[in-house]
Amino acid sequence: MSLASNSSPLISSETAKQHASRDSCWIIVHGSVYDVTDFLDEHPGGSQIILKYAGQDATEAYEPIHPPDAITTNLPKNKHLGPVDPDTIVAIAKEVTEEEKRRQALLAARPPLDEIINLHDFEVESELPCPSAKGWAYYSSASDDEITIRENRLAFQRVWFRPRVLRNVAKVDWSTTILGQKSSLPVYISATALGKLGHPDGELNLTRAAGKHGVIQMIATLASCSFDEIVDAGVPGQPFFVQLYVNRDREITKRYVQHAEKRGVKGLFITVDAPQLGRREKDMRLKLIGEESGAKVQEGQKDVPKDQGVARAISAFIDPSLCWDDIPWFLSITKIPIILKGISTAEDALLAYDSGVHGIVLSNHGGRQLDTARSGLEILIEVTDALKKRGATRQFDIFVDGGVRRASDVLKALALGAKAVGVGRAFLYAYCAYGQPGVEKAIQIFRDELEMNMRLLGVTTLDELRPEMVDARALNVHTGSIAEDNLFRGTYQPLSLAKFRDAKL
Amino acid sequence: MSLASNSSPLISSETAKQHASRDSCWIIVHGSVYDVTDFLDEHPGGSQIILKYAGQDATEAYEPIHPPDAITTNLPKNKHLGPVDPDTIVAIAKEVTEEEKRRQALLAARPPLDEIINLHDFEVESELPCPSAKGWAYYSSASDDEITIRENRLAFQRVWFRPRVLRNVAKVDWSTTILGQKSSLPVYISATALGKLGHPDGELNLTRAAGKHGVIQMIATLASCSFDEIVDAGVPGQPFFVQLYVNRDREITKRYVQHAEKRGVKGLFITVDAPQLGRREKDMRLKLIGEESGAKVQEGQKDVPKDQGVARAISAFIDPSLCWDDIPWFLSITKIPIILKGISTAEDALLAYDSGVHGIVLSNHGGRQLDTARSGLEILIEVTDALKKRGATRQFDIFVDGGVRRASDVLKALALGAKAVGVGRAFLYAYCAYGQPGVEKAIQIFRDELEMNMRLLGVTTLDELRPEMVDARALNVHTGSIAEDNLFRGTYQPLSLAKFRDAKL
Amino acid sequence: MSLASNSSPLISSETAKQHASRDSCWIIVHGSVYDVTDFLDEHPGGSQIILKYAGQDATEAYEPIHPPDAITTNLPKNKHLGPVDPDTIVAIAKEVTEEEKRRQALLAARPPLDEIINLHDFEVESELPCPSAKGWAYYSSASDDEITIRENRLAFQRVWFRPRVLRNVAKVDWSTTILGQKSSLPVYISATALGKLGHPDGELNLTRAAGKHGVIQMIATLASCSFDEIVDAGVPGQPFFVQLYVNRDREITKRYVQHAEKRGVKGLFITVDAPQLGRREKDMRLKLIGEESGAKVQEGQKDVPKDQGVARAISAFIDPSLCWDDIPWFLSITKIPIILKGISTAEDALLAYDSGVHGIVLSNHGGRQLDTARSGLEILIEVTDALKKRGATRQFDIFVDGGVRRASDVLKALALGAKAVGVGRAFLYAYCAYGQPGVEKAIQIFRDELEMNMRLLGVTTLDELRPEMVDARALNVHTGSIAEDNLFRGTYQPLSLAKFRDAKL
Amino acid sequence: MSLASNSSPLISSETAKQHASRDSCWIIVHGSVYDVTDFLDEHPGGSQIILKYAGQDATEAYEPIHPPDAITTNLPKNKHLGPVDPDTIVAIAKEVTEEEKRRQALLAARPPLDEIINLHDFEVESELPCPSAKGWAYYSSASDDEITIRENRLAFQRVWFRPRVLRNVAKVDWSTTILGQKSSLPVYISATALGKLGHPDGELNLTRAAGKHGVIQMIATLASCSFDEIVDAGVPGQPFFVQLYVNRDREITKRYVQHAEKRGVKGLFITVDAPQLGRREKDMRLKLIGEESGAKVQEGQKDVPKDQGVARAISAFIDPSLCWDDIPWFLSITKIPIILKGISTAEDALLAYDSGVHGIVLSNHGGRQLDTARSGLEILIEVTDALKKRGATRQFDIFVDGGVRRASDVLKALALGAKAVGVGRAFLYAYCAYGQPGVEKAIQIFRDELEMNMRLLGVTTLDELRPEMVDARALNVHTGSIAEDNLFRGTYQPLSLAKFRDAKL
Repeated sequence: MSLASNSSPLISSETAKQHASRDSCWIIVHGSVYDVTDFLDEHPGGSQIILKYAGQDATEAYEPIHPPDAITTNLPKNKHLGPVDPDTIVAIAKEVTEEEKRRQALLAARPPLDEIINLHDFEVESELPCPSAKGWAYYSSASDDEITIRENRLAFQRVWFRPRVLRNVAKVDWSTTILGQKSSLPVYISATALGKLGHPDGELNLTRAAGKHGVIQMIATLASCSFDEIVDAGVPGQPFFVQLYVNRDREITKRYVQHAEKRGVKGLFITVDAPQLGRREKDMRLKLIGEESGAKVQEGQKDVPKDQGVARAISAFIDPSLCWDDIPWFLSITKIPIILKGISTAEDALLAYDSGVHGIVLSNHGGRQLDTARSGLEILIEVTDALKKRGATRQFDIFVDGGVRRASDVLKALALGAKAVGVGRAFLYAYCAYGQPGVEKAIQIFRDELEMNMRLLGVTTLDELRPEMVDARALNVHTGSIAEDNLFRGTYQPLSLAKFRDAKL
Repeated sequence: MSLASNSSPLISSETAKQHASRDSCWIIVHGSVYDVTDFLDEHPGGSQIILKYAGQDATEAYEPIHPPDAITTNLPKNKHLGPVDPDTIVAIAKEVTEEEKRRQALLAARPPLDEIINLHDFEVESELPCPSAKGWAYYSSASDDEITIRENRLAFQRVWFRPRVLRNVAKVDWSTTILGQKSSLPVYISATALGKLGHPDGELNLTRAAGKHGVIQMIATLASCSFDEIVDAGVPGQPFFVQLYVNRDREITKRYVQHAEKRGVKGLFITVDAPQLGRREKDMRLKLIGEESGAKVQEGQKDVPKDQGVARAISAFIDPSLCWDDIPWFLSITKIPIILKGISTAEDALLAYDSGVHGIVLSNHGGRQLDTARSGLEILIEVTDALKKRGATRQFDIFVDGGVRRASDVLKALALGAKAVGVGRAFLYAYCAYGQPGVEKAIQIFRDELEMNMRLLGVTTLDELRPEMVDARALNVHTGSIAEDNLFRGTYQPLSLAKFRDAKL
Repeated sequence: MSLASNSSPLISSETAKQHASRDSCWIIVHGSVYDVTDFLDEHPGGSQIILKYAGQDATEAYEPIHPPDAITTNLPKNKHLGPVDPDTIVAIAKEVTEEEKRRQALLAARPPLDEIINLHDFEVESELPCPSAKGWAYYSSASDDEITIRENRLAFQRVWFRPRVLRNVAKVDWSTTILGQKSSLPVYISATALGKLGHPDGELNLTRAAGKHGVIQMIATLASCSFDEIVDAGVPGQPFFVQLYVNRDREITKRYVQHAEKRGVKGLFITVDAPQLGRREKDMRLKLIGEESGAKVQEGQKDVPKDQGVARAISAFIDPSLCWDDIPWFLSITKIPIILKGISTAEDALLAYDSGVHGIVLSNHGGRQLDTARSGLEILIEVTDALKKRGATRQFDIFVDGGVRRASDVLKALALGAKAVGVGRAFLYAYCAYGQPGVEKAIQIFRDELEMNMRLLGVTTLDELRPEMVDARALNVHTGSIAEDNLFRGTYQPLSLAKFRDAKL
Repeated sequence: MSLASNSSPLISSETAKQHASRDSCWIIVHGSVYDVTDFLDEHPGGSQIILKYAGQDATEAYEPIHPPDAITTNLPKNKHLGPVDPDTIVAIAKEVTEEEKRRQALLAARPPLDEIINLHDFEVESELPCPSAKGWAYYSSASDDEITIRENRLAFQRVWFRPRVLRNVAKVDWSTTILGQKSSLPVYISATALGKLGHPDGELNLTRAAGKHGVIQMIATLASCSFDEIVDAGVPGQPFFVQLYVNRDREITKRYVQHAEKRGVKGLFITVDAPQLGRREKDMRLKLIGEESGAKVQEGQKDVPKDQGVARAISAFIDPSLCWDDIPWFLSITKIPIILKGISTAEDALLAYDSGVHGIVLSNHGGRQLDTARSGLEILIEVTDALKKRGATRQFDIFVDGGVRRASDVLKALALGAKAVGVGRAFLYAYCAYGQPGVEKAIQIFRDELEMNMRLLGVTTLDELRPEMVDARALNVHTGSIAEDNLFRGTYQPLSLAKFRDAKL
């Protein structure tokens, strides 16, 4: 699948190799040769990483981090030098290391998919198949002391059920409508970035499973697969949402949104909690360790510091000046319902309501941005209170994400006023571990648990969920939790220090 | 003990072996041959498990899961083919494995019964003698993250005593009356299912110990021993309660209840918190691991998914449409006092009071149904408050079960308004570990602890227990507990993930 | 030191050996022979333990459990058969086992006393030198789940200081007056039983250190040394308190109290929280393991069950019928100030005030009686409130004991209204580990810490302590604690189950 | 660098060796010989430590504990005997031990500075390079059970953010003004003592980094480098604060303060929470173990007990009679703004306000003084409330220190009303581990985290921080915390008991 559509003559790989310096830097991606000399300083991830592949094939490094069309879109046509001559490529016999052999043996011994019975299982099984440790670190990391990512999970367990009995629950129905679209679950697949770090098919695993089971996928701005690839992989009429990081260049953003609208996207989720991507130490540590010292960056050259991790390397384009004043513009450029993703206070929920957008996601970005921010579930209570006090009447949907691993979590959020909940990492881990069938199994687990728990709660449809079905008094008590969540605990890997203490004298 | 009472000619085991397919399926149970071909699709546990024994003796698998008369009751007479010819049975010399030898050595080294000094001891000693790991998993498992099963225990430890001193406690009396029946303890033996999974005599261990010591046993619908076997094993005048899962076919339920009444049962405990049996992951994991892959189920054939565990395999008959409208019917078919087992809110306690039943059990089904449901002890406070506010005057008994391991737990529940408490698993573990003498020792431990703790509390009869003798302010604080319950902690086995992390690279 | 003061002829040890049955049972104690045949069934610890030594020298077993005069006091003169002939005693060459050698080596390697810097150190160092594991188990055990013993410690850490600064603290004075007696510390040595289980000099270690440093010792009813031995060991004018278990035979109690008064005792602490001694499982377990199966007790013979531990074996004489009605009698038989030890509620504190006694100890008996009883420190707040509301004006001292390990604990109790605090185990451990110098070091540690902490709190005398110097709002919050007390945690040995799980299959 | 400026003849080291007793005691420091015979009993650290070096070169032991001019200042001129004859010094070939070799190997394998990504990393990396275990114990120790030092950290994590979104945060500015001095961070370097125990350049590492990056250093009274050395190392115009332990001899204090004023110091921080330095058990244990038994101190000789640790050895000069009455005197002797360091209650904050000083530091001395004192952060809330109620109008700055490891901690304190926060240990650990570059990296980490977290909070300058941006309701809840701080936990070394339990039988 060559991306070079011109008919330039074939370029020998020997020729390419001669352009391996700052002064003339060619790289090969997907079989085409590109002159990126002038682009070096504009590369959001820094010039250093490109120079590492100067004169060589960079496809393997390029692919999981960029949509396929990133290079053709960003580089002027005259820098597309044409296809490389395949006959000149010297096959490199990759040696299989002992470690790789051991990894393959462990992979072969993994539990089959039908032994997976809860969403935590996916997380623990996803680490090994993840092609790169950096990728898994990128997925699983959160900011600073990772307190918020854990609070997200624990918050659900500070809400206790008050189940009703002796109601006829022979038939239970957990389907709903989200932003006007039918959904077989009160759960949507939330956006997560760089899906190919965990599986060669990346986000398409989600698309195919979602299409098959009537679930709505939110497409990430930073997906490894391109927006169109994902939409094209959908079944006819499959609804999509799209997540938006707003570009410093608003024209790029406008084109992206209007293209999404043209392709039929049903909800535009603008991320408002990430003017800058968070410091994620697991990610930062691996970045540091993985980096070969290689050729030193030259004195005075401005570059992304090498201790920033994947997250910050890919996010330089995000506009930190985005503010409430921009909302009317967004409402003017598209008819897609607009949802602000990342609201954390009642105050901002009211501003959002007043701004005319169609809804909000109470979220702390999966614990990846401001550490010791509160969980979406906790915020939900103050937000529904504030909206009630304001006398809010127009359609304004509230979503929650972060830490959801059980149908019971979903039911708690809905009882407290959420329309639906977003689940990101759990579906991501599902396909890292088992591809599309993993995602389908995850959906099946939600279905099984929803049926069970709705019956046990005494509700037959989601409409019957009421605040008095939960005791949420402990939710904003910021001290202690009761019984430990051992699955979560067995899954969570604590932050480590620079060096282990037992290496001491 | 042949259950076939007809005088059919003997059937050769060779002949039976020829009926080993979906088209003609015979099985041998307790020395009789049955044609179950037409019954395959009706079997609540699915056809697959029957087909595994097609043409063979299924007694060993049949026995712990079914009462002895289940097959004769459910199968039309003409499918009872008659006794198998014992001379045609080829004895299989079972090889004693190394693992079995080690198990026997460990069994021999177990502590004698008189070294057992608390109820936790029974739990830890019951695992090894349990004939099948599946059985112990079935008993000990609870739903989802097993938060509620642990909360049940911890809740008692959030209630602190306010003991009175300098009262003459030379004589203390812990006997009481439950639903009009004398009981030597303010504790009844609550229903637990499938008793033969843990001991060949199953529930009869309880019956015999209860009869000897003046304790009341509640007979489970899903007992391994039949209802009549249990009642027959009682001493003259021994009172019983019966627990009821309501069948989709109300006639079966009616027959069962009226038979119980005829046999003199003194309380009918209708389970209302289990329209469907919970997802219990320990049970599910073992079911998965234990299942030989065997002959694949055919395409399109409807069957119980193989990852459901014992609990769901045996509970397909339970009616999820049971509701408040059914209560008058129950009151009309029997004069036995009716108790609703599994109430979790003040709202439902008031509905129960208004419905005319005779009492309620505040229970979450031992943590086996809705996870993060509150403990019965916590619910007790809101229920007694609500009944007082309602001005409840007629006889209406409140029971509590779940997590009781100490006489002090019992006294706390009684001080807060319970009439008596139910103890299920602890007695079950007692007989798994030591048979009937184990149950007697458990009763003895309750007696010793009750005597001690009543003296230390400053009460000589249960009537003197008062709410002000406990400080229960922490009961509905859903965060943290103080000092750890190390016995409980040493006993409780945390949930495990699909595969242990240390098997990773 | 022969206790036989008559001039009977010497008895050969061979002769004694012939009286080794239920029908004729002689034992040798401290070189004298006694006929205990008729006493067997009256022995509070049961006949079994005596029969074990029938016809033999029982001194080693007798000594730590009984005051020296117990046998001569309880046995009629005519059963004192006279001195054993020392020439007939066959010396038994005790073999030094490998384990004993290892123990001696460890003892030799113990840290010297001047490396002991806090009271926890004594506890951890006392286990090894303790002559018998049973003894240490008796000392360290508490009741049921040992929740209260730990809560006693943790309660102090839920009280936080509000220290005042810039006060002239050049001179600080921590001396006080307790029941009219000068004390160099606001701490008295509380009664603990059976001191010789831990050190051959038993309670005399306390007496000598107390006399030297101006601290008041409370003599236990169940001391290993006799009351007179202890008082005789005091320096001239050394004040003592005495602790009283009230005997079923009030004449014995009267004699004991009036003898104490004659010997100048300054406070009578009547234990009111122990109508029966608690179930202490560590004690019970060791008792079971240590007991040789030996000769079986005969059928039908009434005896103390062998699983009761040391505590219950020695306490059969305590009167469970003791009640408020007895108080006037006590006030009538003695002029010693009477203090009720073991009050746990404001209600009983008011009853005590009204009864005319001189004070109370808020105590749960070191966690050894009713488990999940609250700590004395927590009770202190409700008691001082109740007395203030009652308008209490007469002299009525409130003491607290349980869990004190730091001078800061003492200061917290005094700030909240206690007159002084009792410390039992910590001093006991101090002499088990290091004899009298250990107790002196413990007193020294209190002095050092009091000086330091009073300065840091901004007080120069104990009178200046005020409730507003502590933040005790968390004291009755029965959930969670903040940072762990690692010393306490390192010292505390969790309860164990009957058999360790890792011995399982 | 000889400190002896007179022209005495050279003294042979052989001659010095002959003065090695209590009667005539000479020591060599920095190449000069001193007669300290008369000074032995006045030495704040006791005579014992000097006698250890009698007749020998004491420089290595002297240096990290004293400023270079301590000996020349304190000893009368006539005791300065003159320079030692260098030719008479016998070089001692130090043998490199196996342990030292292993230590060097570990040092070589330490992570390079650019792998350090948070302040905890410095702590864990500082232990190994610390030249003496005693030094690290001195730095890291806190008082008694070390509950307050940990609470200091955990308190920040009981405050949760309420971040605002959609504010233009393209430019963020975290600079501020502290006591009229520009500071590039809202953080100052708080005083810590004895810097050379951790690095040969001691506090100069801080001075140089502070000068380079516009941060203000507070100079400690007990610095290893002398006050003038530190000030001299600053860049032109570099602002300093100075911390003051008030001497029993007020003239010494007056000279020190007025000298500081002459040298341009901008803030005088008088320590008010240390009338006596705390009992720090880690410090005490190491002191005990490190001490060679050596020559016994003679009977009756008064000396500092050898179990007091470094802290108390060096602090005998501090005046415990310092009180509010002294404040006017301080205000009279200097024009430097005076800040009281170590206020712990609203009451004392109001007294400080009324006394006319310019500000206060809410501090518990890094957990090194009164254990179970509350954290400065918690106190902050009651102090700002009290000042508001008082109607405080004049300039009165509130600072907080203790437990700060993240920029988010700083922002929480500022949101709640602090002007700036002090950071002591973290900068100390930074230079122990990596010298001056370590301190610079620490400053850089604060900058990175401040930029990130201010953006995520939605503020562009520190002025925009508001109390409503945090949820601090859990701050004074003294029970439990939520998710663990694993870095902190991995770093913190629990107190140990005198001997490890596993050395037991």
